[in-house]
Amino acid sequence: MAPVVNGKFIFAKPLQVGELAELGKTAVYDSSETINLDTVALNGSFLAKTLVLAIDPYMRGKFRDPAIKSYTPSFDLGQPISGFGVAVVLRSESDAFKPGDHVYSNTVSYAHYWVPKDTSPFTIIKNEIGLPWSTYIGVLGMPGQTAYVGWKEFSKAKKGETVFVTAAAGGVGSIVLQLAKRDGCRVIASAGTDDKVAWLRALGADVAFNYKTEDTRAVLQREGPIDIFWDNVGGETLDIGFEFARNRARFIECGMSSYKGPNPYRLKNQFFIVGKELSVNGFIVLNWLWKYGTSFYDEFPRLVKSGEIKHEEDFTYGLEKVGEAMQEVLVHGTNRAKKIIVVASN
Amino acid sequence: MAPVVNGKFIFAKPLQVGELAELGKTAVYDSSETINLDTVALNGSFLAKTLVLAIDPYMRGKFRDPAIKSYTPSFDLGQPISGFGVAVVLRSESDAFKPGDHVYSNTVSYAHYWVPKDTSPFTIIKNEIGLPWSTYIGVLGMPGQTAYVGWKEFSKAKKGETVFVTAAAGGVGSIVLQLAKRDGCRVIASAGTDDKVAWLRALGADVAFNYKTEDTRAVLQREGPIDIFWDNVGGETLDIGFEFARNRARFIECGMSSYKGPNPYRLKNQFFIVGKELSVNGFIVLNWLWKYGTSFYDEFPRLVKSGEIKHEEDFTYGLEKVGEAMQEVLVHGTNRAKKIIVVASN
Repeated sequence: MAPVVNGKFIFAKPLQVGELAELGKTAVYDSSETINLDTVALNGSFLAKTLVLAIDPYMRGKFRDPAIKSYTPSFDLGQPISGFGVAVVLRSESDAFKPGDHVYSNTVSYAHYWVPKDTSPFTIIKNEIGLPWSTYIGVLGMPGQTAYVGWKEFSKAKKGETVFVTAAAGGVGSIVLQLAKRDGCRVIASAGTDDKVAWLRALGADVAFNYKTEDTRAVLQREGPIDIFWDNVGGETLDIGFEFARNRARFIECGMSSYKGPNPYRLKNQFFIVGKELSVNGFIVLNWLWKYGTSFYDEFPRLVKSGEIKHEEDFTYGLEKVGEAMQEVLVHGTNRAKKIIVVASN
Repeated sequence: MAPVVNGKFIFAKPLQVGELAELGKTAVYDSSETINLDTVALNGSFLAKTLVLAIDPYMRGKFRDPAIKSYTPSFDLGQPISGFGVAVVLRSESDAFKPGDHVYSNTVSYAHYWVPKDTSPFTIIKNEIGLPWSTYIGVLGMPGQTAYVGWKEFSKAKKGETVFVTAAAGGVGSIVLQLAKRDGCRVIASAGTDDKVAWLRALGADVAFNYKTEDTRAVLQREGPIDIFWDNVGGETLDIGFEFARNRARFIECGMSSYKGPNPYRLKNQFFIVGKELSVNGFIVLNWLWKYGTSFYDEFPRLVKSGEIKHEEDFTYGLEKVGEAMQEVLVHGTNRAKKIIVVASN
């Protein structure tokens, strides 16, 4: 077969501290190379075709200068970025993977076709329950696992307690909201558009509000105090959370999206940690899957299939549109739900 | 017997937010009243004579306007302040207390003689081991209990781990340092005078430094990363701790003395809580004595008597000197060790 164009989405220019990803500069779509799918060397690995990719908030930090260390490796300058995705194996020299297998990992390349140097991060998805591949990078992937792990490990939720979930319409927050309701908690949930707020109500939030048009402090003063704070945003919202926390409240630190921008908010209410005996715990989901991965995959696919756990996806079609999708998720927050890039249908 | 002068140390003027206690204004010594020890009405309570009192950092917050709520009640305006102390019972109408009993609580009045309205906070100290009464408000009192509870509940210490103790020469910090060494940890300890630093070395600190003359950041950069941060001060030191914490470090939030002054430091490094999976726990010792009080009193008096746990006390003699002692502890930090007011010897 003749060589085909192999489009890629390439990391082109590192972000400075506080700088926002810029369309067409930070990373760019490149279709200058071709690949011969029949003859490309595998070197003991496999040839993969990308089906779906997830744009997640954690990716922001990976567009940094590779010289700067952090808890997650940076992307490689001049190379395709990578992330959670599902691909199908076209050819294989590995005993562990055969053509037709669907593989999942957080190292799926933002390219149409690619040969992984390291096959160890990949797991084969059987999908016997017959869910769309996109669910495996959303509600059944890292975001769903993040919600599950953080809630099980740190919430210490008791029936009737009040939970505040920020960025509650996101891939993580929307699952946290539902887990909290399943545990009998009262849920206050915030999001940044009225559409999202309507969805929070549909998911069962007892109080849902648009933090851009309604004052978070006023809402928590009226609806608090809170026993559990699920923090996806950090910043001033975290300070307000400290203020309206009940004694012995649990703060689950999942993300701090407020760190985008040049002048991140500086906390002033941390003294409540002592006076209210607060517990504040950060976590990275990948470090907890040894403990919760099995029970998650035992429970969650069935709950998703039955509709007991609801989820939404906001699709962008085509690898060449990744730049626009990243702007929605990482800069403007205008994605309507979990952002999925559909690269190919099979 | 004729009435005797009953000196009292009276709360005279509330502090505004960030204001420092002022000598002769915030609280004042008053010797205008007398008391007849033979005839004063007991109303079912007892008449107590104060022996020793502790000046502790937590008292700062109690000099506030009583209208402002906080985790600890304010002092009563126009009345003697109160705190941890030991008193001897002179007369009693209560079956639970008899003349000659030595009583301990955190509600001992800063008066020579007084009749408590509520006797329930008082416990009788048997002191069969024969330690000075002052030890029961220092190493065997709230400060020692605080160190013990926080360390046992939150440190999750493992042999060989690195611990950073701030305000390590204080009543709490000096015990934490020793508990950490007993658990096989490497201890970095800071204090604010060279005399205190010398004492930290004598207590076994592996690294001891004067934070006023040596840069905390440089020390932690050289001697870190740290696994456990015992936080008595908050503020910028806490930010530096976040920066030089190892993954999964434990932050034990015992106090935030940096909150004195009009412009408390605002944190900027809290995003490390997520990226390093930090655990940050505040606590109030009185809420944990149900769990640790018995084992503390089983272990600690013996360790103090044998010298296995060392402690120092910095005495001020006379109730009329409480103002000066408070300046040392609450404003200048010039007390050399745990501050004890010796009101009477027996």
